[in-house]
Amino acid sequence: MASSLAQLKKWMETHRAAIREDYFHFLRFPSISTDPSYKKEMLNCADWLRGYLAHHTGMKVEKIETEGYPLIYAEDLRAGPRAPTLLIYGHYDVQPVDPLELWVSDPFIPTERNGLVYARGAVDDKGQIFYAVLAARCWKELGRELPINLKFCIEGEEESSSMGLAKSLPKLKDKFRSDYLLIVDHGQLDKDTPALSLGCRGMLALEATLTGSNSDLHSGLHGGLAYNPNRALAELLAKLWNPEGRVQVKGFYDDVVESTPEDLEKFAFRFDPKEYGKEFGIEALGGEKDRTPLEKNCMRPTIEINGMFGGYTGAGVKTVIPAQAKVKLTCRLVPNQDPHKVGRQIVDFLKKHVTPGIKIEVEVYEGEPAFRGNPDSQLAKAVSLAATEVCGKQCENILSGGSIPIIAKIIEATGAEVVGMGYGLPEDNIHAPNESFDMGRFEKGFLTVARTLELL
Amino acid sequence: MASSLAQLKKWMETHRAAIREDYFHFLRFPSISTDPSYKKEMLNCADWLRGYLAHHTGMKVEKIETEGYPLIYAEDLRAGPRAPTLLIYGHYDVQPVDPLELWVSDPFIPTERNGLVYARGAVDDKGQIFYAVLAARCWKELGRELPINLKFCIEGEEESSSMGLAKSLPKLKDKFRSDYLLIVDHGQLDKDTPALSLGCRGMLALEATLTGSNSDLHSGLHGGLAYNPNRALAELLAKLWNPEGRVQVKGFYDDVVESTPEDLEKFAFRFDPKEYGKEFGIEALGGEKDRTPLEKNCMRPTIEINGMFGGYTGAGVKTVIPAQAKVKLTCRLVPNQDPHKVGRQIVDFLKKHVTPGIKIEVEVYEGEPAFRGNPDSQLAKAVSLAATEVCGKQCENILSGGSIPIIAKIIEATGAEVVGMGYGLPEDNIHAPNESFDMGRFEKGFLTVARTLELL
Repeated sequence: MASSLAQLKKWMETHRAAIREDYFHFLRFPSISTDPSYKKEMLNCADWLRGYLAHHTGMKVEKIETEGYPLIYAEDLRAGPRAPTLLIYGHYDVQPVDPLELWVSDPFIPTERNGLVYARGAVDDKGQIFYAVLAARCWKELGRELPINLKFCIEGEEESSSMGLAKSLPKLKDKFRSDYLLIVDHGQLDKDTPALSLGCRGMLALEATLTGSNSDLHSGLHGGLAYNPNRALAELLAKLWNPEGRVQVKGFYDDVVESTPEDLEKFAFRFDPKEYGKEFGIEALGGEKDRTPLEKNCMRPTIEINGMFGGYTGAGVKTVIPAQAKVKLTCRLVPNQDPHKVGRQIVDFLKKHVTPGIKIEVEVYEGEPAFRGNPDSQLAKAVSLAATEVCGKQCENILSGGSIPIIAKIIEATGAEVVGMGYGLPEDNIHAPNESFDMGRFEKGFLTVARTLELL
Repeated sequence: MASSLAQLKKWMETHRAAIREDYFHFLRFPSISTDPSYKKEMLNCADWLRGYLAHHTGMKVEKIETEGYPLIYAEDLRAGPRAPTLLIYGHYDVQPVDPLELWVSDPFIPTERNGLVYARGAVDDKGQIFYAVLAARCWKELGRELPINLKFCIEGEEESSSMGLAKSLPKLKDKFRSDYLLIVDHGQLDKDTPALSLGCRGMLALEATLTGSNSDLHSGLHGGLAYNPNRALAELLAKLWNPEGRVQVKGFYDDVVESTPEDLEKFAFRFDPKEYGKEFGIEALGGEKDRTPLEKNCMRPTIEINGMFGGYTGAGVKTVIPAQAKVKLTCRLVPNQDPHKVGRQIVDFLKKHVTPGIKIEVEVYEGEPAFRGNPDSQLAKAVSLAATEVCGKQCENILSGGSIPIIAKIIEATGAEVVGMGYGLPEDNIHAPNESFDMGRFEKGFLTVARTLELL
């Protein structure tokens, strides 16, 4: 095994300079999926990735058109039907870059400073999926046949809904069939400790509009007479939690499975309120007061007010009682919660508790359930062993408080056992200005995936 | 008296067509004071008004420069120092016109449909101040000397703060000195009944910013850990009122003088919840539940949330816990309330009740106290008599729930007794698309002011 790792390291050393060029090339495409003005660059990026995979990995590569952006699919089935099949998931699209003025260098001109590569997508997810692609390339160039069948699904809409992939999944079921699903879009536990991600929370989004009148009203001529929908919205939202931080929606926790002390011990979680406060400027903590940080962030459902707005929001004063006030909510869901059921419970709560006479309309978006990986699956064992070997430190099991909405659908379509991995850290600033990746972690990622392919 | 009224009517009849042309000319200036791109048109409008007054009334007219837009000042002091002096206040600036697409005809091309003149400013306040100017013109053309000294103060920033006039007032104290102040910027009680306005509420604006973290956070990765400032804001605002609609700010009502049943009988107020609901689409009523509509709208202070916003407000979903949430509040104040004191009370309340650990900053804008007119003043009696005579129906005393911030300052500077008058109705859509004025009411306004000048 050690000799295998040495071989991989040597390969990387030989190709390091050229690989860096390729990685930078990939980063230069401004592949922002949510903004239609980047359509051409999105398509160029997809074509480049297809070409790269075809040229360097020897896999059979397809650009699969969807209702949204195309996804790049690759397969190498030479291990035969008796061997297990691994599907690796990642994405080539990136988050928008605003506020642009906070970037030290152009987000689409990768720049190295102090050993870090700064660019949008440096980690999320171009950097991470690119080292996974290199793992496939490496084995091919080393002339080794893989003991497993390998598939890649690299989509172009993870940052903007995965709509194209979601709609195409029924047709792609057979193509995607696999025993294992590896999501290469996660983080480490801390800068020394690798992690195996065994699940994400699900998500459900809702939007409510409260209407008090048929047009905006003058706050002097109507003040004291008309009920202000901003007030109604504040009063309604304040009822969502009790002072202990428990969500007051009837039935909200009904299907949540209580974690046993043993469950809690299965997962590592780094949280020091002082460090957290210092890093993010946070003094007030949320969630249910009687829960641990691990539970609050990963094992308990939440409701967050992502957006709230009514009336005048410009500079200065406008004496208006607005006709409407709006709120955007998302829930994070935990295993066993049904997004449809939770959606109905929240709608019922909002309609029941809104000020009588204030009209309310609630739109419920398509939700996604939480998913969990099995720590005893062959994939989990292989990734954990590979990461431990590569990092020289025991790989820890973790959960994510976030969501990757498409994953539950892929699991359902393929029947695969899932695991997430990655070498991201909070300091990488994904989704924020000055995203960066450390080439040391990039190479650890490459080694971990390459060893996993061999170990599985 | 009747013969005097007949004379005025005859004058109007003779000049009706030309006056209509002049009025339309005045309306054609897009004199939107709040939007700097209309600066040239604002200045052109002021010049036209100065020329009109100088040419048609024989008064001594001045364009007085201020830090903002100029004000047009005119005076006729021929009645001498022993005679009383009346200052007429109005404004030549207008509200913005958006949403423009809801206008049936161009807001700055006055258009007559079904006997109504449609244009921005048709009523507020070009229509109303213009008929007051015509009253001065008429007496001059009829060769009659006024028994009083007459002054006009027609400002260009009523719709955007009156900042220029406010800052110039100390210098203009002597020029503005007067016994009576007539605000020609009000409404009737209903379409048949004229009204004498005996006061407005004061106003105080505040803006609060709640900060939970040093940057926007991912609602999955931080959900359950960080306290969402949107939630903190909703919870804070919900505490402002109790279920009976009473403001919970400590000391808020301390200086409010309780109205006696006799006080309530002094003022007419039209309010039918069914009619109100039908006209404005309102089903939920605000204010303190144990008060009458007249009290709630005119005799009790209020707090309104004019704007409230935090996080993502665009289309679709963004899974963010915002760093900040903001609210814009205004209070309407009643006589004897000190804006500074109320401002301090509200700041104290917000700081005391915000979620611990959430930072809060509150900005308090310059406030204005309420003002009241004396129903027994010579001016009140003259306007009431004139309006009763012109409309053939007893003029009623009313109060306004709105505010004209500069008035309290003018009263303070001049020592004048104040009364408001006007022929506006809710159906005129002031501040809204398709503002219109009925030429019948325009002429009643002219007759009322002209008779007031004679009666005083």
